[in-house]
Amino acid sequence: MQRNYQQQTLGILGGGQLGRMLIQSAINYNLDIHILDPDAEAPCKNLCSRFVQGSLTDFNTVYEFGKECEVISIEIEHVNTEALYQLEKEGKKIFPQPHIIELIQDKRKQKQFYLDRDIPTAPFVLTETKADVKQHLDFLPAVHKLGKEGYDGRGVQLIRSASDLDKAFDAPGLLEKFVDFDKELAVIVARNEQGEVKTFPSVECAFHPVHNLVEFLFSPATISPETDQKAQSLALEVIEKLDMVGLLAVELFVTKAGEILVNEIAPRPHNSGHHTIEANYTSQFEQHLRAVMGMPLGDTGIRSAAAMVNLLGEAGYTGEALVEGMDEALKEKGVYLHLYGKKLTKPFRKMGHVTVLEEDVDRLREKAQRIKELIKIKA
Amino acid sequence: MQRNYQQQTLGILGGGQLGRMLIQSAINYNLDIHILDPDAEAPCKNLCSRFVQGSLTDFNTVYEFGKECEVISIEIEHVNTEALYQLEKEGKKIFPQPHIIELIQDKRKQKQFYLDRDIPTAPFVLTETKADVKQHLDFLPAVHKLGKEGYDGRGVQLIRSASDLDKAFDAPGLLEKFVDFDKELAVIVARNEQGEVKTFPSVECAFHPVHNLVEFLFSPATISPETDQKAQSLALEVIEKLDMVGLLAVELFVTKAGEILVNEIAPRPHNSGHHTIEANYTSQFEQHLRAVMGMPLGDTGIRSAAAMVNLLGEAGYTGEALVEGMDEALKEKGVYLHLYGKKLTKPFRKMGHVTVLEEDVDRLREKAQRIKELIKIKA
Repeated sequence: MQRNYQQQTLGILGGGQLGRMLIQSAINYNLDIHILDPDAEAPCKNLCSRFVQGSLTDFNTVYEFGKECEVISIEIEHVNTEALYQLEKEGKKIFPQPHIIELIQDKRKQKQFYLDRDIPTAPFVLTETKADVKQHLDFLPAVHKLGKEGYDGRGVQLIRSASDLDKAFDAPGLLEKFVDFDKELAVIVARNEQGEVKTFPSVECAFHPVHNLVEFLFSPATISPETDQKAQSLALEVIEKLDMVGLLAVELFVTKAGEILVNEIAPRPHNSGHHTIEANYTSQFEQHLRAVMGMPLGDTGIRSAAAMVNLLGEAGYTGEALVEGMDEALKEKGVYLHLYGKKLTKPFRKMGHVTVLEEDVDRLREKAQRIKELIKIKA
Repeated sequence: MQRNYQQQTLGILGGGQLGRMLIQSAINYNLDIHILDPDAEAPCKNLCSRFVQGSLTDFNTVYEFGKECEVISIEIEHVNTEALYQLEKEGKKIFPQPHIIELIQDKRKQKQFYLDRDIPTAPFVLTETKADVKQHLDFLPAVHKLGKEGYDGRGVQLIRSASDLDKAFDAPGLLEKFVDFDKELAVIVARNEQGEVKTFPSVECAFHPVHNLVEFLFSPATISPETDQKAQSLALEVIEKLDMVGLLAVELFVTKAGEILVNEIAPRPHNSGHHTIEANYTSQFEQHLRAVMGMPLGDTGIRSAAAMVNLLGEAGYTGEALVEGMDEALKEKGVYLHLYGKKLTKPFRKMGHVTVLEEDVDRLREKAQRIKELIKIKA
């Protein structure tokens, strides 16, 4: 029997740029998209058949929103899971499942899960207070992470030595041994209800040295086929051990000793997969849809080498956004601008991204650097 | 000075599938899209910041709609041009310009334009009535075309011999010598206000023998580089002689003698360019936006050979659409489904299309045929 996706309503918790790019994909399938977001001017506002302004963390708001949908998914993890459990009990399909979202909301539980399920990850200790952190001098250099509410580089502090200890959070967190990594990779993996799984090839992340946000991303990663294979296998292992349905981004460290460790995971489309829109046979957004709707997963093969550059609001500018250098950038072949529909810019706000296609890897790096210097989000 | 596209409102006359795919592209540029369409359930309905239900041919409706936009474009030619002339006078940017739309609305004027401007086209005579057509027995075999209101294969009759003469329209039209063509090609060309022009490589159309709608489209066309070059040059010549800003689809015949003739033109995204979404560096929809917004035009190069299959409502089915064979098709690499958001199907209604990517041309044809047989729109 043929399932008719056209007649299904997909509710998304969160209406930001991830939801926006998901909608761009969903249009191809006639999916009826409902969006819940606290911001009346959320990027998805005018692109869905039902937009509800409301809190993502309030039980009633999420529950009432979800009641009118057949399938419910997320584009942000900070949502009310009690409402999702209730909706699941009432027969709604919630992907990723509520227990996955709960696990992701607490980095402490996430780390404990890796440990319990033999998933390689950096050594850590759980801490309750700042004073607690100070007991672990022998663990330094380390990274102190808030258990909850951390997002996009917030809630993470590098503690190199005793003199940094005052940067530690005075709240439940975890202290993780600093990994002197050779590369930071990400693998996106998807799994549908039927149990079909597919991984995207590994990509390589280059972080901004100060702001701890991905500055460039390169696909494919410049690693051996064996390392790529190991990274993809590890991502598969994680999604299967989680028993998760949906899309999972797995961030990985390759240590100088050649070991691969799981750093963090996100059960949704992710910054490290934006290039797939142009650079792979199936985009991460389409794959997310396919996974949560129970469709067959798409081929994840690479169509072209690519770089992705995040467009962050320039430091020193707050107000109505103005994109500088756009015309120059758009003259070039293989340059794809994605603006996120946010009217107001502020320093380091994610305003968009650019994907750059180029077959030759050296030329790709040079071009990505040039585009990054060219496009500025000012006010 | 940098023009900030984000702050511009683009009004589109027509909210069907072309507008819908245009919006998918426009999302990347934060463009504020307004749509006017007579159908309250038009495919663009939930995907724009302002949707007006109203007649495209009524002066006041078009005028009032246009007053709130900075740039106005079309996705269908049957619109009120008087309102557009008025809006143009008041400083709005109308692309394509009203005089182009007027020319396109009347196939007789279109043909006369080719003749006057030395653009090669099939010989023709203008006819006023059915009786008129009967005076031109010496012109047969020929095609009789209604001057106005023809669209998507409607308003066209093949008159092979005297016995077909009763099929002729009893209204102003044109009788065109039947072209015994070797190939039917299409070239999409764009021009912006600054005068920059760019053509897409030629594609080859395969029509359904009965319904006179494109059945398959192949990119690139299997023609010599010289023929491709001649076809592209002719498309350039047409857009420049029209002095048009926007996107123009130029349908061409290659005669058995190797001559290239202009058949018809459409000043907007076109069925013969749908494959560009996946198969070219820039899609026709993005190119249309770039042209009408005054942005630099994008590279039109081919990323992959492609076929496009129109998904028409199956004969014998009317009612709520159900897509058959979707799962089977979506399992394949390089198969892209685009449904147009139309709830109701009826025989031969354009419900969607599929783009198929495949490097090997023989495999591409086989795969396109298989996908066509697999996906059926029923009710």
